[in-house]
Parts: sequence; structure tokens; C-alpha cells
Amino acid sequence: MEKKPVFLVVNGPNLNLLGEREPSVYGHETLEDLEEKCRNWGDSKGIEVRCSQSNSEGVLIDILQENRKEARGAVINAGAYTHYSYALRDCITALAIPVIEVHISNPEAREEFRHKSVIAPVVRGRIAGFGSHGYILALEALRNIILQGLSK
Amino acid sequence: MEKKPVFLVVNGPNLNLLGEREPSVYGHETLEDLEEKCRNWGDSKGIEVRCSQSNSEGVLIDILQENRKEARGAVINAGAYTHYSYALRDCITALAIPVIEVHISNPEAREEFRHKSVIAPVVRGRIAGFGSHGYILALEALRNIILQGLSK
Amino acid sequence: MEKKPVFLVVNGPNLNLLGEREPSVYGHETLEDLEEKCRNWGDSKGIEVRCSQSNSEGVLIDILQENRKEARGAVINAGAYTHYSYALRDCITALAIPVIEVHISNPEAREEFRHKSVIAPVVRGRIAGFGSHGYILALEALRNIILQGLSK
Amino acid sequence: MEKKPVFLVVNGPNLNLLGEREPSVYGHETLEDLEEKCRNWGDSKGIEVRCSQSNSEGVLIDILQENRKEARGAVINAGAYTHYSYALRDCITALAIPVIEVHISNPEAREEFRHKSVIAPVVRGRIAGFGSHGYILALEALRNIILQGLSK
Amino acid sequence: MEKKPVFLVVNGPNLNLLGEREPSVYGHETLEDLEEKCRNWGDSKGIEVRCSQSNSEGVLIDILQENRKEARGAVINAGAYTHYSYALRDCITALAIPVIEVHISNPEAREEFRHKSVIAPVVRGRIAGFGSHGYILALEALRNIILQGLSK
Amino acid sequence: MEKKPVFLVVNGPNLNLLGEREPSVYGHETLEDLEEKCRNWGDSKGIEVRCSQSNSEGVLIDILQENRKEARGAVINAGAYTHYSYALRDCITALAIPVIEVHISNPEAREEFRHKSVIAPVVRGRIAGFGSHGYILALEALRNIILQGLSK
Amino acid sequence: MEKKPVFLVVNGPNLNLLGEREPSVYGHETLEDLEEKCRNWGDSKGIEVRCSQSNSEGVLIDILQENRKEARGAVINAGAYTHYSYALRDCITALAIPVIEVHISNPEAREEFRHKSVIAPVVRGRIAGFGSHGYILALEALRNIILQGLSK
Amino acid sequence: MEKKPVFLVVNGPNLNLLGEREPSVYGHETLEDLEEKCRNWGDSKGIEVRCSQSNSEGVLIDILQENRKEARGAVINAGAYTHYSYALRDCITALAIPVIEVHISNPEAREEFRHKSVIAPVVRGRIAGFGSHGYILALEALRNIILQGLSK
Amino acid sequence: MEKKPVFLVVNGPNLNLLGEREPSVYGHETLEDLEEKCRNWGDSKGIEVRCSQSNSEGVLIDILQENRKEARGAVINAGAYTHYSYALRDCITALAIPVIEVHISNPEAREEFRHKSVIAPVVRGRIAGFGSHGYILALEALRNIILQGLSK
Amino acid sequence: MEKKPVFLVVNGPNLNLLGEREPSVYGHETLEDLEEKCRNWGDSKGIEVRCSQSNSEGVLIDILQENRKEARGAVINAGAYTHYSYALRDCITALAIPVIEVHISNPEAREEFRHKSVIAPVVRGRIAGFGSHGYILALEALRNIILQGLSK
Amino acid sequence: MEKKPVFLVVNGPNLNLLGEREPSVYGHETLEDLEEKCRNWGDSKGIEVRCSQSNSEGVLIDILQENRKEARGAVINAGAYTHYSYALRDCITALAIPVIEVHISNPEAREEFRHKSVIAPVVRGRIAGFGSHGYILALEALRNIILQGLSK
Amino acid sequence: MEKKPVFLVVNGPNLNLLGEREPSVYGHETLEDLEEKCRNWGDSKGIEVRCSQSNSEGVLIDILQENRKEARGAVINAGAYTHYSYALRDCITALAIPVIEVHISNPEAREEFRHKSVIAPVVRGRIAGFGSHGYILALEALRNIILQGLSK
Repeated sequence: MEKKPVFLVVNGPNLNLLGEREPSVYGHETLEDLEEKCRNWGDSKGIEVRCSQSNSEGVLIDILQENRKEARGAVINAGAYTHYSYALRDCITALAIPVIEVHISNPEAREEFRHKSVIAPVVRGRIAGFGSHGYILALEALRNIILQGLSK
Repeated sequence: MEKKPVFLVVNGPNLNLLGEREPSVYGHETLEDLEEKCRNWGDSKGIEVRCSQSNSEGVLIDILQENRKEARGAVINAGAYTHYSYALRDCITALAIPVIEVHISNPEAREEFRHKSVIAPVVRGRIAGFGSHGYILALEALRNIILQGLSK
Repeated sequence: MEKKPVFLVVNGPNLNLLGEREPSVYGHETLEDLEEKCRNWGDSKGIEVRCSQSNSEGVLIDILQENRKEARGAVINAGAYTHYSYALRDCITALAIPVIEVHISNPEAREEFRHKSVIAPVVRGRIAGFGSHGYILALEALRNIILQGLSK
Repeated sequence: MEKKPVFLVVNGPNLNLLGEREPSVYGHETLEDLEEKCRNWGDSKGIEVRCSQSNSEGVLIDILQENRKEARGAVINAGAYTHYSYALRDCITALAIPVIEVHISNPEAREEFRHKSVIAPVVRGRIAGFGSHGYILALEALRNIILQGLSK
Repeated sequence: MEKKPVFLVVNGPNLNLLGEREPSVYGHETLEDLEEKCRNWGDSKGIEVRCSQSNSEGVLIDILQENRKEARGAVINAGAYTHYSYALRDCITALAIPVIEVHISNPEAREEFRHKSVIAPVVRGRIAGFGSHGYILALEALRNIILQGLSK
Repeated sequence: MEKKPVFLVVNGPNLNLLGEREPSVYGHETLEDLEEKCRNWGDSKGIEVRCSQSNSEGVLIDILQENRKEARGAVINAGAYTHYSYALRDCITALAIPVIEVHISNPEAREEFRHKSVIAPVVRGRIAGFGSHGYILALEALRNIILQGLSK
Repeated sequence: MEKKPVFLVVNGPNLNLLGEREPSVYGHETLEDLEEKCRNWGDSKGIEVRCSQSNSEGVLIDILQENRKEARGAVINAGAYTHYSYALRDCITALAIPVIEVHISNPEAREEFRHKSVIAPVVRGRIAGFGSHGYILALEALRNIILQGLSK
Repeated sequence: MEKKPVFLVVNGPNLNLLGEREPSVYGHETLEDLEEKCRNWGDSKGIEVRCSQSNSEGVLIDILQENRKEARGAVINAGAYTHYSYALRDCITALAIPVIEVHISNPEAREEFRHKSVIAPVVRGRIAGFGSHGYILALEALRNIILQGLSK
Repeated sequence: MEKKPVFLVVNGPNLNLLGEREPSVYGHETLEDLEEKCRNWGDSKGIEVRCSQSNSEGVLIDILQENRKEARGAVINAGAYTHYSYALRDCITALAIPVIEVHISNPEAREEFRHKSVIAPVVRGRIAGFGSHGYILALEALRNIILQGLSK
Repeated sequence: MEKKPVFLVVNGPNLNLLGEREPSVYGHETLEDLEEKCRNWGDSKGIEVRCSQSNSEGVLIDILQENRKEARGAVINAGAYTHYSYALRDCITALAIPVIEVHISNPEAREEFRHKSVIAPVVRGRIAGFGSHGYILALEALRNIILQGLSK
Repeated sequence: MEKKPVFLVVNGPNLNLLGEREPSVYGHETLEDLEEKCRNWGDSKGIEVRCSQSNSEGVLIDILQENRKEARGAVINAGAYTHYSYALRDCITALAIPVIEVHISNPEAREEFRHKSVIAPVVRGRIAGFGSHGYILALEALRNIILQGLSK
Repeated sequence: MEKKPVFLVVNGPNLNLLGEREPSVYGHETLEDLEEKCRNWGDSKGIEVRCSQSNSEGVLIDILQENRKEARGAVINAGAYTHYSYALRDCITALAIPVIEVHISNPEAREEFRHKSVIAPVVRGRIAGFGSHGYILALEALRNIILQGLSK
């Protein structure tokens, strides 16, 4: 039996508090709801969607590195690390797969420090402001890239 | 017969040169191809997709204003005006409909001046880096917002 | 019969949406109400008040240039162009008549980008924060300048 | 007999030298001329115009605080304190009456340091560039605000 | 009879309006309440707490200079002078006693200009965000420093 | 038996070297001494003081998240993470309990990079410059907040 | 009969006021004089020089786009748009012909805002400070580039 | 008997603590010593040297204004007001006499905030780093200017 | 038998991908190759070279802290943490041993964010641009420092 | 026999390596070729073109000073000194002849530091991007200025 | 016969043009006049005043280095090198003699770039704005320093 | 007899004062000692090490240019020119040999202006903080580069 292609969905710090943390900004859906939605999408497309979350910058890098050979692409919401983790940026550069940056809210409409993404210059594309639906759009975008046979 | 909901697709300066201008950045598809792709998506969803393009900041504002009563949402690629047209920003704020900002390439990976979007703080969401597919993702996002009955 | 002196009242982008756009900031009066108030003031003083509005930077410059010989002064609310239209600034410098900058709200109490007016250094005076009454104060100021025989 | 409403006119540092100091910028009228003009305006409108001047930041704050219960509004030309007196700004914020910022010349057309007003974000409106006539316009604006029953 | 040690409590501009000014930020306690609370604390500890307030930068410096020989320490809330009074900073440096900077609210959570304290580098310690209780904590801190025989 | 309220004391990177690291800045007390002092304070007040330390940003976030339901408040010295950990800031925002920022020395009197605290805008209050006594003042402040029934 | 090569001469906002506007800066020659001088140069060299002017950013882009196939090169004085029109910059980048930036005065010797040209990085060369003679030098430069068979 | 020419020597905040305040920076001479030295110089030259000091910005301005008719020149050490008192700067501009800025230490060799003098652009000359001898050099310079009949 | 002196070689995030990641920048040697080269150097000099790598900021600090008593010096390539880890900087300051900063490539020739090293001010020396040979030069430098009996 | 007018052509640091240094930027022509081309132009116009080059800032100033009486104008390519030699700028200001700044490449299209010319505000005109032909254009411009009898 | 103490007077670039260059700024005195005035002062005080000038940064450093053993002090007007010659600054730091910085005009009243002196932090004192008399004041200051036996 | 390969060692301004200048920073070794150490290293490796020093920017450029054909590599300590000599940077770029930047102290641990090296982006590698041993490490690095047959 052919192995299904693997897409990563990686969530960063404090996203494990989704549904509890500032619901006016992030909504009432939990991380579990979000991850299940992503996996369901994968099931309907014949894609294995692997989800993980960590509050640690180093662990996020470990996850990306460990899956770099097997995964065909990654969707990442790096939370606050988006704004200063050059280590994560270097990791994304080192991977040979397309990476999509996603945000639940629109960071540009929030505090000044959220306006800069240090990973933005090294990702394939960016999606922000659509709540959990943004992850599905990102997965669709990844699938479209791979169907088109476009390498990163 | 019920009227179909209207979504706008508005393209800004120099996007009429798509397919000809810097194909390594913007690809070989023309603006006509792109607009047809958007209208086809609309046909398949029962949505009227109205496309327009102008090189003039004032005309872009006129287009948005004139359609503000009839349209349910808008997808806008403001081209270089993205980076300094506060007049366009004010116009988006004045509209009562959700607006999605889209870019064919990933501006954050290009020149410094493209890193700032003055309309970003007032749009509903943002999508960049997926070529013409980004417009379809944006239309999908708009449709999802409206289906959910979420006003801007 | 002697010709009445002409004062221009020029409104910039999105001011045609007055009364509809962000009423908490701009109030419920429409542009038509505002222009009528200005013309009424003119009638009571024996002054022709010519009103115009455009969303286009170039058209605003055209209006000022075309009236530069006939008008004795101008009141301008350049909307968002206030903050970056050096072309409009050059036009004001090129005119031989006094120009008054007016704003409905107080831009200094709003977003950072509204704190800078690129036309401020070349206008005769500035009035902000008094709603539509500010236009009447500006017309009064113009009349006072001209009665005093003070050229720009 | 009903008490007349009170409007304050407060002038800051070096404005006591009006008529003597840099007449090319500030004109030949003295502070006494200016204050009399304001009081005359008040007499014609049934308003008590109370004028005061000080070179001291703390004394200007004292004046505003002491009159805060009795006055219906204030016109303030804070002179150079405009550009750095956050203490004065806090005082204006603490008052429950509308305050109008006025300048004899157009500060934006002068040295860089005069381009920033730290009180601008907390005043009701701003008038600059009309010589002593600006004070009359400011008093008119105050009267208009109070006639309209608009609280600050 | 042995003389009690003296601690100064010095309040700067607009703090005389406590209880009246922006109660959502500063609470409903008046300056008199606050000063009495500090003196009561002193009575319970055998310390004379001398309280004073002024809206004038120069007077605040005078107060600190005049008490510099007799006082063992000082608690200062410089109000808005915190953010630009280098003269006050020089005065604190010139004193031979420990000075504690205190703020009723948390300035870092407010406007940008309140984020910088020019006296911070020369005070012994800083306490902010605890309302009037912050003054008691500061007095406790002063007492602890002096009990430990630690000079500034 | 009623459960005692819980207060967290969380120390960040390199604070485990207290007493050894730069004693001229941080004193000779060890982290163990400091934590014991805090627990003793708790014993005398009927409060459980839970102390922890980590060199890892992610682990500090984990600690705060894990205790967020049980703890009534937290005292945090984030060490160098104070100056750049927006992830920690987001975590503090997400918690429903008051958090007090404490520093052993006065960061404003040290290197430039220590002058900015990215967590300052989201904490309840701040205390700096009093050595280990600052932790006791912070615990007192927390207790005062909770006794007053003031939620964050 | 062979068609003559075409060179564009494009003038931006307010240059239609040449001869009238600030003659101490721009001289007494009118735009018509300038354009005739350019066409005369063309006649002497067997080159068709097409001149146009507009106050509108969008129209300037339209002109360049419409002539992009037929013209062999362009000389552009973008007036104030020089300093902020990234849309014009993108248009120049999109053209396949060499473009020369020309200024009548020396912008570096004037106001700060004139020191930055956003089109400078994408033009072939730049000439400033020589009055209308600068256009002739630019045309000479274009001719030299094309004679040398150097593509942009 | 002919009246002697008057030179002012004006000292700003904290200079009354000379000899006590940071003697490693400012030396052991007191303000009284310094003023006597200046008056002695005056006696030897037939010049009345009037000395004054204040901690208040407004009082320093009052002193300069009150003496502006009688004095032939002024030597001013504005202390920390040097770095932010635009009100003092305006006062110096308004005076018709030459003003010399003097500093006991070399501010450029001290903290960053002391590197900027807001009065520097409006004084006749500047002298720094020579202790109290700098005042004598400044008085010499003033005398030289007046002997040469050079007006400010 | 005498114990050999210990030198640490600590590599930060993504350096475990050496040989795979951007070989045009970092070359084809793996981390294992590099570490072996360092240990071989140690064997030839009678020095124990202890190598470690981690993607986690906190773990890197743990490693340095745990070895701080036993090691005589350290060579550190902090990867991207070089540019923002003030926690690592504090750790280096807290150590009593000389630390050498090393980089495989020349960061100053790469992206802007790599131009700033926050650890640079606290290390003993710096070496960059020599590939893996830079580690050997750093070890030589450490040995030279210790042979000279020079403490940090 | 009448003496021919003298024009200077002065080249700065590293321009002696023309033809060898970065030929992709500067072309294959040597400095000798360039100087000969300039002298040939002079011969055809009856003008003496004096060429010189130096790597030293002071020597370049010496050359300009020594020729300032005899020369009618100068063309200068100051190489990297363009970007920081305020001494050269002062020298150009001190000369009574028109000076044209010329660059072989277009500095605005290169590294950031090349975007600022400190001599730009004091030269008569500027020409960049035309290779060695730019020198001929500059000489033409000089000749045109002098024929028009326009002094600097 | 005892050797007279030596004072250096060193003038930088373009000061050899004194009397010719911008006389409205620098006056009509030549460098020879100025140097003679300094030597005359020396003769009257029994001091050898050695004067030199160069347009070259390196030669100025050579002069200071060569005289560093023999001279007791130096007066330097570094001309434009004042604003960027860190090499000169290092040289002054390396000398064991007091150095006085002098300027003929008041640089703070001129262009922005003249407001920063890179040598200011390392000189003993500074004098500006007094024409050639400033050199005499500087020599007086030097003599006073040495008479007082104050080493640098 | 085969000619030995040549390595340059070039020292910039004030390095001729080594051993005398700020020995706490630069040590007691003289330039002669340093150069001899380098030549001795060369003798032991069969390499001719040519040493030179100058205080003049232009002369340093001359030295590098004159040796560019014969030398295989260069070690340069540009002293203060490191921080602003773009002319030297251009020279290094123009050379076809690897250049190593070396500093005796660690500039990043000193004044702000020493933190920027304008030659850093164009050198092959950088070594700082190891005293004169840094030159030997740099020579070793050069030798290693050439042995590996790696061109710049």
C-alpha cells in the first residue's frame, strides 16, 4: 500500500490555550478542535496531517528537523516566536520543503511588535486573519503547490 | 430569480502587465487568465465575481466606493499602493464589507519597501505567496466568512 | 456688476462618504450638507464659494491649478493625501494664493500616520477638530487675511 | 443677575514679549493688545474672557487647575512648552472642559522641534498661523461647541 | 528625646487632583488620603513622614534640596516630570540619600511617552502599579535599606 | 481543612547562579536563600508560596500554564527573557491571575538592552532594585491585591 | 521609409506650471519651450521625441505602459512622485527599455524629502541640476546607450 | 558718573549645590566662590557682573527678560535645562544681546542626554570643560565682542 | 595521573544540520566531522575537548553552567541565538572562564540581522569566516590565553 | 595667443584600478582611456581638460584648492569619499567655480551606504550611471553653464 | 637658558582658505593672520606656539604624534574632520597632553552634520563661536590648566 | 630558487603608538615587536611577511594596491578607519586576494562607534580580542586558505 504524503501542522507557544486565552481575539475553538479539523481535511484528501505543539523554541526546531525527510510540507503558527526566533527562521531555511506561515488573527491589526515576522522572508506563503479556517487554506495551498510539482 | 451575491476582485497598478512583467516573480499567467479563473470559481459557487484593474489610486477608490452597497466582500491586490496609499486604507475602513488583501509573490521576501502594508491593519485577512491560486484561496475565505454569517 | 471674490473649498479622498463613513469620528453631516453650509456662508459675505471633491491626487492638483488665477484663497481638506502627497504640496507652493488646511477630526489624536502633514509647512494656517464648523472658521480666516490685504 | 460663562485664554513662556520678539514671525501687536481683543470679543458675546500669562510650566498648570470648576472652556498657547510639557498635557487631560490649542505662527513651517505638539492629542481642536485672529477663531470655536451642548 | 528619622514623600504635577483626575486610572483616593496613609505608616514605625506636592519642576527640586540634610530617604512620584526632567534627575544624583521612584499606575501599560523614566537610572529602586499601596511598599523598602545600614 | 491560597515565585535564566554570579550586582544570597525567605513569608501569612526556576523560556511558560488554575497570583523575575520573550508576555496575558514583575537590581541603571521590558505592559505591577527584599514586597503587593478582592 | 526610433519625454505633476512656479528654482522657460527644445534635438538626430505631462500618478504609468512596445527609451522627470511613487517604480522595472531620471534643479540641495528618489534604484542613469539642458543631456545619454547596442 | 556696562551670569538648576554635588565632576568651589570670582573680574574691567541662580525654568526666563534692556550680554549655564528647555531657547532668541553658553564639565564626555544642547543653535558662542575658569573666559569673550562693536 | 584541562566546544541551533544545510554557505563537513577535528586537536595538545550541541537556548545555558567549574575555557557558536539571546550573554558573563565566539561563515557579509551579536561584548575574542578551521583557531587562542596565565 | 579655459577632471580612490576592478560594475576601460577621452573632448572644444587622481582625501582637496583660481569648472568622481568626506564638501563650497558630481555606475542601485552623497548638496549638478560617457556629459554641462555666463 | 613650554595650534582641512572661504561665516582674517596672533600671544606669555595646517587627516595625526613628547598642550580646529575622524580621536586619546577643541563659527547653528563632534568626548574642553579670538581663549585655558598643575 | 609566497600585514592609524597608547587596552608590546613576531612566523613557514603602517587612509590604500599582484593574502588592522573608510572597503573589494581583518582588543566591548566595521562585509574572515596573537592566528588562517587552494 502506498504511503500517504505527510503534511506537518506545528503550533507554537500558548496555542495550547486556544479557546481559553483571549477568546475575543482567538475564538472559542480549542487546539484539539483545530487539530482534528486539520486531520479531517487530510483524511478527505488522502494526506497524513501530523499535528504538534510546544511552548519551547528548541522543541519546535527539533520537530521540524525530525520530520524534514518524511514530510512534503509544513504549516506553522509560531505564535510569539514569529517575531524574534531567528533560530526557527534558520531551521525553515535549512528544510527542503515548502513552509506556510499561518496566524489565527491578523497580527498587523494588533500591537506593534506583532507587525514583524522574522520567518516571513523564508516561508513559501503567508495566511492570516481567518481563524482556524486559515489552517485549512494553508493545507490547500500546500497541496496545490505539490500537485503542481513546484519544489520550494 | 434570486440575485447572486457579488464578490469584487480589484487589482492595482501594473498588474495589467501580468505575464509580461518580471515573469520570474509573477509567473506567465496574464491578468485575463487570472480574472477568468476567479470568475470560473464564482460560477461554480453561485457567486458573481466582478473583476477590475486600474493604475490610478483614485480610480481604485472609486471602484470600491461604487460597489460598496452591492458587494458582499472584496479581494484586493493593491500592487505598489499597498505600501503607501493611506487613501485606499481609509476607503477600506469606510466600507462595511470584509476585504481580503492578496499578493501574488511574498512581499516580505523582496525589497524593504514591500515589507510594510498600510492597508494590512484594516483588512479582514491576508494571503501572500501562492501566485494566482492566492486569489482563489481569498475568495474561499470570503465565502467562508459570509457563510458563517460573520460580519466584518 | 462687480464680480464676487472666489474662495475654493476642496475635499479629498473618501470625504464624499461623509455622514456614512465612521460617524463616530466624522459625524452624520454629508458632504452636500457641508458644501451647502460653506456656500451659505459665502452668500452672507458676498463671496463665491466653489466646492469640489475628488478621490484622485492628480485631479485635486488639476482643480487647484485650474482655479489658481481666479480664486483669492483656498480651504483644503486633503484627506489621507495630507500625509504623503508631496505633489499636492508642490502644487500649493506653486499657487500665489493663501491656502488653509482643515480637518474635521483632530488627526493628532488618531493613528500615528495621521500625525504628519506634508502640506503643513506650505499652508498659511491650519484648523482641526471642529467638525464642519472648521470649514467656516477657515473661510473666516481667509476673509480676514484678504481684508487685511495680506498676500500669502 | 445670571453669571456670564467664563472662557480662559492662557499664554505661555515669552508670549509676554509679543510685539518685541521676532516681529517678522509674531507681528507688532503686544500681549496687552491681544488680550484686550479677546476680552472685547467676550463683551460682544456675553462671555467673560479671563486672560493670564506665565513663563513657568508649573504656574500654567496652577492657573488651569484653579479655574477648572468655573471655566466652560480654555484657549491655550503654550509657547515652547507645547513641544515637551507632558505635565501640561496631563493637566489638560484632567480638566473636564474643552481646550483649544492656538499658535500665532504656523509651527510646522519653522524649526523641526516645533513640529511636535505633546498636547495636540488631548485638546479638542487646534488653530495655527492666523496671528492674533487665531485666538478669536478659537473663542468662536469654543462658543460653538458649548452652544451645541457638546461636552468634551 | 531622640529625633525620629525623616522620610520624604514628594508628589509632582497634577497629583493634587488625585481622586478627581481620570479615576479609572488613578482611583478615587485623594492626595490627602494618600498622604495621611503614609503618615500613619510612619507613626506606626517611629518615622516622621514629610509629604509635599507641587506642579512646578523647580519647586520639587527646591523641596528635595532643602530637606537633603535632614531626611534619611525619599519616595518620589514625579508625575509627568518623570519622563523629561533631567533637572530633577541631577538633583536626585546630588542628594546623598536613597530615593525610591513610585507610580500609582503602571506607566509601561500606558502611552509611549510614559515608558521612559529619566530618573530611573539614578534612583535606588522603583515600584509601580499598586495604587496608593505602592507608597507604603516604597516606605517599607526605604526602612529596610536603612535598617540594613546600606547607604545609597 | 481549608486549602491555603497559592502564590507562585518564578525565576528565570541564570538566577540559579545567585550568590555566585556578579555578586557586586546581585549580592551574596543564593537562590535557595531567596526561595526560603519567600516560603517563610508565606508561612507567616497562611499562603503557600511555590518556587521554581528554569533557564528555558518554554519551561517557564509551561510552569505558569500548569499552575494557572490553582495559583492566585505570581511573582516573576524573568531574568534576561524580560527583554525579549514575547512568548512569556503572551503567556502572562493569557493567565487570569495578577502577575508582579520583580528585579533584584535596577535594570534601568545597567546596559541599554535591560531598559526595555516586554512583559511590563501586561503585568499588574513592577518592583526593582531592592535585592531579595523586592520579592517580599511583591508578595505583600499580591496579598494586598487579593485581600482587596481586586481581580487583575 | 524607415520609421524613426522613438524616445519618450515624460513630465510629472506641476511641471505644466514651469516658468510660472518658483522661477528662482525652476527658471522662466515654460513646459512648451522645454518640449520644443527636446523635439528639435530629436529632429536633428533623426529621432522622434514624444512628450507628455500629467499631474496623475496613474496616468503617468498609463503613458509609459502604452508606449512600452514602440519606444526605445524614456526620459522621466516624475516631479514630486519621484519621492514616493513605488507604483511608478514598478512600472519602470516592468518596461524593457532604458529610463533616465532627470531633474531641473538639484533635489539634494533642497528639502529633506527631496533627497530620496524611489525610482533611482531602477533607472539606467540620473541627471540633475542643469535646468532644461538636463533633458538634452539625458536624450544624448539614451542615444549613446542605444548606439552602443546596450540593452537595459 | 557714567554707568558701568552690565553683564549677566545666570546659573540654572542644582548649580547652587556646587562644591557639594559630585565634586569629582564639578570640583570643590561653591557657587558663592564662583560668583565672587566673576564679580572680581568685573571690578577689574569696569563692568558690573550681575549673578543669579534658580532651580526653576520659568524664573530663569524671568531673570533674562527683566534684565534684557539693561544688560549688554549674558553668560548662562542652564544646567540640565540645557538639554530640553526650548522655552529658554526662545527667550535667548528674543533677547537683543549676545549670550554665551558655558559648562563647568565637558557634557560631551558624559551621559548621552547631555550631548544635545537645545540652546546651542541660538547662542553666540560656547565654552565647556574648564571648571569655573570657563566663566571668566566667557566674560572675556563677551567683552571682546562688545569692544569690537559687534552686535549679536 | 594528572587530569587533562577541559575545553568546551558548544554548538547552537541548526548546527546539527551542518553538511546538509545551505552547503554553499556552510560547506559539506558534518557536525560529527567538526567535533572529531576538535577532539583530535585536543588529543595532540593534551587537552580534553568536550563537544555538545542543542537547538534549545535553555539547554545551551544548562551546558555552560554545568561545566563552569571543570572547564578552563569555551568555544561557542551560538548559531542564530548569537543575535538575540541575552540569556546566553548573561550566562557567559556569569562564567569565570574565557569564552571565544566562533562563526563558520562571516555573518557581517550576510543578512542585516546577523550583523549584531549580543554576546560579542562579553566574550574574550571572536573568530569568523574560516569554516571549521575557525574552531581550531579558537582552541589555539584559548590555549594561548591559558598558557599565558591570563585569566578572563 | 589666448589661453584656453581649463576644466578639471578629478578622480578619487580606487578609480586608478578602472578596467581591473569589478568590471561587471565599472566596465573594461582604464583610467587612462577615460582621461584621454576627456582630453580629446577638450581638444575638440578648445578647452584644456586637466585630469588627476588620488587615493587620498587630503590630496584631492589640495588639487581642487591649487587649481581654484585657474579652472573654470570641475568634474569630480570622489569614489567612496562621496559618501563621507565632509572635508571635500567644505572644499567644494569654498571654491568659486561650478562643480559637477559624476559616477560611472548608479550608486542608488548598489549598497545602502552608496545612496548618500555628502557632496551632493553643494555641487551644481549630478550625473550617474552612464559609464565613462557620463564624464563627457558632465563636461558638456559645464561648457553649457559657462557659455550661458552662469556663475555658480 | 630655560626652554619655553610649547603649545601646538593645529588647523585642519580648508582652514588655509580662511579669509577667502565663505567670509560671512569665517571672517576676512587669513590663516597667516590667525597664526601670527597666536604666536604673538605666546611671545607675551613666554610660550612657544607652534602652528601647522593640513588638509590631510593622516598628516594631522602625524603632526600631533610627532610633537607629543615636546608639547605641553594643543589647540585643534579639525575642520570637517571634527565630524567623522575617529582616527584623530584615537590620536588625541593616545596623547598625554590636554587638547582644546576650537571652532571659528558655532557649528551647532549650522548644518545638521556639523552638530556632532567625534573628538568632543576625548578633549579637555571646547570653545566655539568667537572667531579667531577663540584660539586666544583656548590658549589662555591651556595656560590656566598647566599653571594649576592639572594634568589631563 | 623559488620565490616565497608574500603575505601582507598592514596596520592603520595610531598603531605605531602600540605599547605607549592605552596599555590597559592594547598591552605593552610595540609595533616593532608585533611585526617581528609576524616575520618570525613567516620565516618558520617559508612565507615572506611584509609589514607596513600608516596614519593615512590614502597611503593604506596605496600599499594594498601596490602589492596586489605580488601578495597572496593580507592581514589588516585598519584601526579607526575600520569604522568609516568606505574607500578602504572598496580597495579590499578590488583586490583579488583574501584579506583578514584583525583587532588587538575586542571592539564590540568598547565604545558604540567601534561596533561597526565597514570593511567586515568584504573581508574573508575576522579575528578580534587576542592581542598580538590575533595576527598569528590570522596568518595561520591565510595559510590554511591558500593551502586548501581556496580563492577568495
